[in-house]
Amino acid sequence: MGQLNIDGAVLTPLKKILSPQGNIYHGMKKSEDTFVGFGEAYFSTVKNNEIKAWKRHQRMTLNLMVPVGKIKFVLFDDRKNSATEGNFFEVELSLKNYQRLTVPPKIWCGFQGKSQELNILLNIANLEHDQKEVDKLDIHVSNYQ
Amino acid sequence: MGQLNIDGAVLTPLKKILSPQGNIYHGMKKSEDTFVGFGEAYFSTVKNNEIKAWKRHQRMTLNLMVPVGKIKFVLFDDRKNSATEGNFFEVELSLKNYQRLTVPPKIWCGFQGKSQELNILLNIANLEHDQKEVDKLDIHVSNYQ
Repeated sequence: MGQLNIDGAVLTPLKKILSPQGNIYHGMKKSEDTFVGFGEAYFSTVKNNEIKAWKRHQRMTLNLMVPVGKIKFVLFDDRKNSATEGNFFEVELSLKNYQRLTVPPKIWCGFQGKSQELNILLNIANLEHDQKEVDKLDIHVSNYQ
Repeated sequence: MGQLNIDGAVLTPLKKILSPQGNIYHGMKKSEDTFVGFGEAYFSTVKNNEIKAWKRHQRMTLNLMVPVGKIKFVLFDDRKNSATEGNFFEVELSLKNYQRLTVPPKIWCGFQGKSQELNILLNIANLEHDQKEVDKLDIHVSNYQ
């Protein structure tokens, strides 16, 4: 488990248990340090090269996993007085790089499909979806390249 | 949401939100009737025609969804004094029949991959995995055809 260059964001390697009939891929356990409550779990798919960005949750902590395909995530910290203000972080998650990305509230987040086949993420969030706590910005409103 | 011929088991239709960039598939919300607590979420894959059976959890409630492929689930109730003792229930879940199967404790459960491509289930369980609360039976020890 590692802290990133965005204060409060965490990458946690996840266990894979492989067997001839099929595999088990860990997602999240209540006892883990990054678990801050369960509100909702949902899947989101993204086509190859398509980008879903930018969104910022005021109160929700996201826990993102990619069991199918490959998805690039980009985080941006514009929190005033954050020790990591101004930083971008990016990571590509897949079964090959099978980790959970924990995104704290108030961080801008975007993602892009990187496999020509299906790209699926699971988000285990501490709150149920509430449009009122989500800020959105056009994909181009950022100096991220 | 429907009660089944196994007392305590429930099938809940899940919402799909489709868009050109990618889709959202609901999984589970804390406010839903069938939510009885979060302990662990994990993925399990099963190859086409492979069977994983039988398992019975003494305390865990399972919430099973199939975001990829198609999986046939079979439940069996051998609880003494259950109103539905002796009953089998079977259902095939997929994005086409996108529902959540809630399996209460003490019910035998097995499943089989039904798509030649990837078959993946997500289980959102109210307890963390604990081998001590799991009973197993050989796949052939049942009169289920």
